[in-house]
Amino acid sequence: MAGDQDKPVQPVSGTSVPRYAGPSTFARLPELRDVARCDVAIIGVPFDAGTSYRPGARFGPQAIRQASRHLRTQFHPAYGTEPFMEQQVADAGDIACNPFNIAEAVEQIQTAATDLLGKVGGLVSMGGDHTIALPLLRAVNHHTGPVALVHFDAHLDTWDTYFGAPHTHGTVFRRAGEEKLFLDHASMHVGIRGPLYGRDDLARDEDLGFKIVHCDEFESEGIDKVVKRIRDRVGDHPLYLSIDIDVLDPAHAPGTGTPEIAGMTTRELVNVLRGLAGLKIASADVVEVAPAYDHAELTSLAAATVIYEIVNLFARSPRRTFTNAATSSSP
Amino acid sequence: MAGDQDKPVQPVSGTSVPRYAGPSTFARLPELRDVARCDVAIIGVPFDAGTSYRPGARFGPQAIRQASRHLRTQFHPAYGTEPFMEQQVADAGDIACNPFNIAEAVEQIQTAATDLLGKVGGLVSMGGDHTIALPLLRAVNHHTGPVALVHFDAHLDTWDTYFGAPHTHGTVFRRAGEEKLFLDHASMHVGIRGPLYGRDDLARDEDLGFKIVHCDEFESEGIDKVVKRIRDRVGDHPLYLSIDIDVLDPAHAPGTGTPEIAGMTTRELVNVLRGLAGLKIASADVVEVAPAYDHAELTSLAAATVIYEIVNLFARSPRRTFTNAATSSSP
Amino acid sequence: MAGDQDKPVQPVSGTSVPRYAGPSTFARLPELRDVARCDVAIIGVPFDAGTSYRPGARFGPQAIRQASRHLRTQFHPAYGTEPFMEQQVADAGDIACNPFNIAEAVEQIQTAATDLLGKVGGLVSMGGDHTIALPLLRAVNHHTGPVALVHFDAHLDTWDTYFGAPHTHGTVFRRAGEEKLFLDHASMHVGIRGPLYGRDDLARDEDLGFKIVHCDEFESEGIDKVVKRIRDRVGDHPLYLSIDIDVLDPAHAPGTGTPEIAGMTTRELVNVLRGLAGLKIASADVVEVAPAYDHAELTSLAAATVIYEIVNLFARSPRRTFTNAATSSSP
Amino acid sequence: MAGDQDKPVQPVSGTSVPRYAGPSTFARLPELRDVARCDVAIIGVPFDAGTSYRPGARFGPQAIRQASRHLRTQFHPAYGTEPFMEQQVADAGDIACNPFNIAEAVEQIQTAATDLLGKVGGLVSMGGDHTIALPLLRAVNHHTGPVALVHFDAHLDTWDTYFGAPHTHGTVFRRAGEEKLFLDHASMHVGIRGPLYGRDDLARDEDLGFKIVHCDEFESEGIDKVVKRIRDRVGDHPLYLSIDIDVLDPAHAPGTGTPEIAGMTTRELVNVLRGLAGLKIASADVVEVAPAYDHAELTSLAAATVIYEIVNLFARSPRRTFTNAATSSSP
Amino acid sequence: MAGDQDKPVQPVSGTSVPRYAGPSTFARLPELRDVARCDVAIIGVPFDAGTSYRPGARFGPQAIRQASRHLRTQFHPAYGTEPFMEQQVADAGDIACNPFNIAEAVEQIQTAATDLLGKVGGLVSMGGDHTIALPLLRAVNHHTGPVALVHFDAHLDTWDTYFGAPHTHGTVFRRAGEEKLFLDHASMHVGIRGPLYGRDDLARDEDLGFKIVHCDEFESEGIDKVVKRIRDRVGDHPLYLSIDIDVLDPAHAPGTGTPEIAGMTTRELVNVLRGLAGLKIASADVVEVAPAYDHAELTSLAAATVIYEIVNLFARSPRRTFTNAATSSSP
Amino acid sequence: MAGDQDKPVQPVSGTSVPRYAGPSTFARLPELRDVARCDVAIIGVPFDAGTSYRPGARFGPQAIRQASRHLRTQFHPAYGTEPFMEQQVADAGDIACNPFNIAEAVEQIQTAATDLLGKVGGLVSMGGDHTIALPLLRAVNHHTGPVALVHFDAHLDTWDTYFGAPHTHGTVFRRAGEEKLFLDHASMHVGIRGPLYGRDDLARDEDLGFKIVHCDEFESEGIDKVVKRIRDRVGDHPLYLSIDIDVLDPAHAPGTGTPEIAGMTTRELVNVLRGLAGLKIASADVVEVAPAYDHAELTSLAAATVIYEIVNLFARSPRRTFTNAATSSSP
Repeated sequence: MAGDQDKPVQPVSGTSVPRYAGPSTFARLPELRDVARCDVAIIGVPFDAGTSYRPGARFGPQAIRQASRHLRTQFHPAYGTEPFMEQQVADAGDIACNPFNIAEAVEQIQTAATDLLGKVGGLVSMGGDHTIALPLLRAVNHHTGPVALVHFDAHLDTWDTYFGAPHTHGTVFRRAGEEKLFLDHASMHVGIRGPLYGRDDLARDEDLGFKIVHCDEFESEGIDKVVKRIRDRVGDHPLYLSIDIDVLDPAHAPGTGTPEIAGMTTRELVNVLRGLAGLKIASADVVEVAPAYDHAELTSLAAATVIYEIVNLFARSPRRTFTNAATSSSP
Repeated sequence: MAGDQDKPVQPVSGTSVPRYAGPSTFARLPELRDVARCDVAIIGVPFDAGTSYRPGARFGPQAIRQASRHLRTQFHPAYGTEPFMEQQVADAGDIACNPFNIAEAVEQIQTAATDLLGKVGGLVSMGGDHTIALPLLRAVNHHTGPVALVHFDAHLDTWDTYFGAPHTHGTVFRRAGEEKLFLDHASMHVGIRGPLYGRDDLARDEDLGFKIVHCDEFESEGIDKVVKRIRDRVGDHPLYLSIDIDVLDPAHAPGTGTPEIAGMTTRELVNVLRGLAGLKIASADVVEVAPAYDHAELTSLAAATVIYEIVNLFARSPRRTFTNAATSSSP
Repeated sequence: MAGDQDKPVQPVSGTSVPRYAGPSTFARLPELRDVARCDVAIIGVPFDAGTSYRPGARFGPQAIRQASRHLRTQFHPAYGTEPFMEQQVADAGDIACNPFNIAEAVEQIQTAATDLLGKVGGLVSMGGDHTIALPLLRAVNHHTGPVALVHFDAHLDTWDTYFGAPHTHGTVFRRAGEEKLFLDHASMHVGIRGPLYGRDDLARDEDLGFKIVHCDEFESEGIDKVVKRIRDRVGDHPLYLSIDIDVLDPAHAPGTGTPEIAGMTTRELVNVLRGLAGLKIASADVVEVAPAYDHAELTSLAAATVIYEIVNLFARSPRRTFTNAATSSSP
Repeated sequence: MAGDQDKPVQPVSGTSVPRYAGPSTFARLPELRDVARCDVAIIGVPFDAGTSYRPGARFGPQAIRQASRHLRTQFHPAYGTEPFMEQQVADAGDIACNPFNIAEAVEQIQTAATDLLGKVGGLVSMGGDHTIALPLLRAVNHHTGPVALVHFDAHLDTWDTYFGAPHTHGTVFRRAGEEKLFLDHASMHVGIRGPLYGRDDLARDEDLGFKIVHCDEFESEGIDKVVKRIRDRVGDHPLYLSIDIDVLDPAHAPGTGTPEIAGMTTRELVNVLRGLAGLKIASADVVEVAPAYDHAELTSLAAATVIYEIVNLFARSPRRTFTNAATSSSP
Repeated sequence: MAGDQDKPVQPVSGTSVPRYAGPSTFARLPELRDVARCDVAIIGVPFDAGTSYRPGARFGPQAIRQASRHLRTQFHPAYGTEPFMEQQVADAGDIACNPFNIAEAVEQIQTAATDLLGKVGGLVSMGGDHTIALPLLRAVNHHTGPVALVHFDAHLDTWDTYFGAPHTHGTVFRRAGEEKLFLDHASMHVGIRGPLYGRDDLARDEDLGFKIVHCDEFESEGIDKVVKRIRDRVGDHPLYLSIDIDVLDPAHAPGTGTPEIAGMTTRELVNVLRGLAGLKIASADVVEVAPAYDHAELTSLAAATVIYEIVNLFARSPRRTFTNAATSSSP
Repeated sequence: MAGDQDKPVQPVSGTSVPRYAGPSTFARLPELRDVARCDVAIIGVPFDAGTSYRPGARFGPQAIRQASRHLRTQFHPAYGTEPFMEQQVADAGDIACNPFNIAEAVEQIQTAATDLLGKVGGLVSMGGDHTIALPLLRAVNHHTGPVALVHFDAHLDTWDTYFGAPHTHGTVFRRAGEEKLFLDHASMHVGIRGPLYGRDDLARDEDLGFKIVHCDEFESEGIDKVVKRIRDRVGDHPLYLSIDIDVLDPAHAPGTGTPEIAGMTTRELVNVLRGLAGLKIASADVVEVAPAYDHAELTSLAAATVIYEIVNLFARSPRRTFTNAATSSSP
């Protein structure tokens, strides 16, 4: 068992082992079992049975981990942080969930995440399709209560049902709203664009408590104003970030299930995230990476980098200090 | 309404409309609604929720139709047939089935296929994953009774359940066996290869009544002997052909969900099929084309060509003259 | 024959048939033969013999149709329209044209489009290479007289001849200018960039009556000013939109024949189009999608979305009401 | 000007310049202008306006040259030859031909090839689509008289016209037969397979004087018997080899315009060619490489290797010693 | 620490965790640190600085591990073995080696492999380029003495130097021969084909003690005779298998650095390997998988399957029972 | 020998030879040996042994040359130049360098470039990885003395050593700084972004004399201000431009070794370059194009266009008239 109270176990260094070699954990971080405590756990949720168009997000976690080998991680000048030194980050592996039964999978994810959040400070979940956000929000609520939800996506994901199914990647935030899993006065969609399924989609969405930053507003208002709107709305509530990679333009993220043109650039996305530094980040997910449609790791590298940005947000967040009970209790 | 009793409605001709133009039906055949009677219907079953590894066969039917534009179809010298002149072939569109609920989808397929087989002489179904073979066999049994099943595949597909699910692409022929949907003295697997999930997989499979042509036997015995074994076993029973495209080597069919090396060549596969000319073909499926993993239409072109070969088998099959009740009854 | 005077025949709904299933028409719209009248017809013109570099736009229409399955189409908040409810839109199939003889193909397109415009309110043509714009403009002129031409493209397409050929994708607007097919005081190129074939290309182009919005002006002036310049120039003349997909940056539209870096983003393109709402749209084309060079449907999805935006422009256009004579006259 | 009478100018050596560097000529051979005489010239004919389905063979020559960097070329054990030492081989560049006018292109190719054959011993032409074989055969006839034609292809290419065009990639050998460009008692198709456009295609083809080795005969008869049949038929007539790369199975040659499954393996093809050693080779073409559909250079590497095999056939052919008049005559 | 003396630690089961989830070790086997003893260790050697043409084999090990998720591994009917039950197999991670200094890397590999072979029964190394076979053979010699070498490859790999470098992927068996690392009366190349760098390459190769099975002999002699020749030559010497994936035809293994057409099929390769059951297998390598050129995991799946076949050869090999000293000695 | 003192030898014209045909030199320019004098030479440096992650830039030069066929080159309106008329530009082929020995390769590049700069006015080198900038800077210094260095890159490339190697693509400007190859008061990095290897990377970089334009400043400041900062810093010093293609966002340049999201657009890059018109350009390199990861020539087309822009900068640069001594001295 490596690592002590003062110095977190570090990722394998790129100066001793080439980045294309060594462990396949996210950013070559230690596995959860190898750390005495864990502030932030990265976890895979390879599930895509809730996908309405192009499937394949079940391969997202492995692709994101592979792309994360690209990352240089010691120091992030935009945050002024050494995120793997200032907190213990570890890879918690994958949540095994039933590919043939959505309801059972939702429960498996909820149980695993709830259990994990009893031991670690926060989760960054790698999807998987957006269906997984519901059980993840339930788990966060179990430990933290309702959270401010900032949801980056091309789509609202607040339809009622789809082919009679209550749990799909397009209905997740309707369910979450019904269960009061997020604070309806502190939540937002960011990056929404394109046509809708119906004239009253926006009204119904507003009923759930959301405000919207439309994607075009990045062009018309600029990043700074968007950041301010998000910060004002979230305030000092604990924040759950749910990032559908299709919030990015397909040029930046081709490898996703329901691409929508006229999207955000990666430069816009990382700069919005950097603008959120100092908010109380509770947990997060990055979903809908479908590697079969990716090219040259564009999408998985974008997702890996976004996850690393979120890890920096954790480092800048008013601090948490959870202990990895499971391992620390083993004498 | 085109077409008369004597001369089937033909596909759009490649000499008047370039093959890359014109309708997107299989081989640019007429739609079912455009023919007075239909001997063989080609139908899409875009369903892949039963997939255990790489998903995406939901896009199979559209990809096969697009690849079928390559086909020259007037005369097949190996059969001596003009298959679209000697019988009316039409494209019956897609069966809409629930992507989120396997049980409901199985029922939808069964209902649609049963209904269709009341109106057409035989079906060639384009998958979709192999799960669809169960409801298709049920529909064929409803009209014809138990059939000889010749199943081309790298895998047995006779596991019991997978993650508790009875209906998946790996359990389909166990279910079919339990329901006595095929004749246990007249059925075969062809092309089986590779390791197994357990030491007694083969024994259990034999209990269901299957004989096996192992893929290596194409190398050691040659095509003619394999053909003879199949013909001897099938005899004059009505025959259901179920062709998992992964029976082909991944070099020939990369676009599939669970590829297995050391497979058949397309030359072997079409020659075995040609060897079956004269058998009583009832219906067939060609499944597991996953276009996101395909390249240059290799897999979808293989599937389209195999379907065309099957259409020739229908032309050489004893009997044939069903009427498309739905359309012919409309005065 | 479906549809009545009051309610247009709708596309197949994504809530009853998954979007990857069902008809291969654009956006799963009805075929032209299935509607009593037609306000806007989408038509494929699979022709690429006029291509100077990468061929393959002959496969453009089928690829755009396949990508159009992605579209959500009920309500477009940017226009405030339900474009398939407020007008009858249908897919008119493909114009068959000779792949080996440009002159004959140009004539075939002109004849078919002229005929079609006698029956429908407006056309949106899916290329094919840019050569097709000439016969399409002729057809529009036949019915409407000269039009304001707004031409989105990286290139001017006003060379004289190319290898002695008068009709190619690079000479189309020189020919159109010579034939006075567009109003020389009301026409523009938008998105032009990059080096030229000669120092006087721009002067010669101006002689034809064009003004130019250079691509860099989107960066220096912003979308709103560009929109105003276009609206001021077009005024209330009937407008023909000709959109070469290479007006987009290759990052957004890799699948095209003569890509040019430093192009427009899809966000810029759709926002310019939205700025044109209320202009009198006559007809339009979207050309130069070459699927063999595309990845993950980036280019074909961009083209499909642009076509859908144009359909919304029709919905916002001072109204037309043509009747599909061919079908409505059939008792 | 390098090279003397006794020792041919050699390709750039892979031991002094890495194979991925240095000139882009075929196999990094000298250009034609750099040699005093030339026994075999490799020439590109980038033309694809005669293509009926997937275009793009215009990029064939550059792709084949790039793939030819892979070749090790000093000694071929199957022939016992050092083909670049025993004869002067050079790259003659590309024939420029009109992309918009088939008739003019055919003439340009004929003129250039006829001219070239006045200076070099034999040509190996890199297509381009199969249309180019007609003017190439005319040029060879001009110098040599009618030749035995051995034609490797999935298709007969003996249709009459296609969309009214006499010169396309599917009609080339009908035209050649009408012009008596090949010896009707000494010519063959090899590798033919698949369905036909009509019941009498084979009969009409036989009328032109062809015999056929069907692709399946490689499986049923074996390579040695096929070789014997070809040798017996060709005898000691001068031989023109025309190799459509689609004679290979799509698994071996995905990058082509009209792929047909159930084809030859590359192992079969090179072994048939090796069996032809000692025949009097006059000239040859390798056509229909469409790089946009290729992957990992499979098709272009196959074509490059086949060309190298043909160069070895030249080395084993009785006679050889032409002089590059153009250069040697320049004092 | 899991696993006891009697029952090896098993891979994660595909019935509890979907195969696309869970650990990224080869076939989801335990890591070496997780087993008390280890009979066969799978190890990655991500090194490609010895590559003469297409680089990228440094990404081979991770790609092979990812592809190994496809494998069903419980029971192999061709061997009659349960290879993970009958012996303890584990993934030993990657050997870190210097990407910029070949000599240092060779030493690093030698040291690591020698050390590892002190603790485990045998190694299956995943390349990396073929350069790695030299230090691996040294390590095996250190523990076992000279071995019979059976080398599957398109190329001899017995050049002297390349650009002055003694250690490259093309010189490895010259070096090994000079160091007497293999038994010159018991070693073979299998699958050799294509042209050579010089007329005396074969003679020089024979001087090193090799016999050759040319690739064409699979066609002319058949697999059984080839197997017999190998078995006769190897006898009961300890056997080192070195498998360059380019022994396969590029259709079966496009993702490699120096592809050569006319190669083996995967069916031939696995059947030759199965024919070696019962020989004394010492260690093995599978090299030259270059994922950037792969498609749909064809090459990495072939490599993963071949490794699994080798693991079965270990299970059928006389002798076996090493102890993982490193872990078992830590009380 | 073509060309005279007054009129430079021109590239092959696209109006007589289709752009996909003809010589494979950059932009189909004459080879260096074909011109009497040379103002600007384009040269390939196919070397990638200094790459830390994805290799393959050894194929960069050939890919860039192939993509340069797309270019229209007569007149560039942004510069008002006819760059191939106003100066003689030629392709100088490739520098052969050792793929297995970095130190030797660095020396080979230095020798070849120094020699070449004795004969031509300036060099534009096509990489290859960034390691090559060191010997190129040495050669420029040999002829010109220290230069202002403007370095476009996502990364600083000023690490000390990497795996003990002094010469890699990540350490090149540290070495150059130590050797005083650039003016420390006149040099800049442009486009830097992302995390760093350590907290003091930026300080150490500043010690070498660099100022930095961070990539985000294109969004916050705009292109004009960035241009001014560069011009102010460079002043009238001779300028060396080193452009790592990864300065572009991966959406614009996927085909590179160490992509970093949130990068520049091609529109920003060409506009910055255009802003540098009039500066004294000495030489330049464009590096890190790794074609195996490219799609549809995005990256190689971007590189080719950037090189063409640089050629225009040469045309606008004060001074120019070197003579190609090697050729002009040969009587």
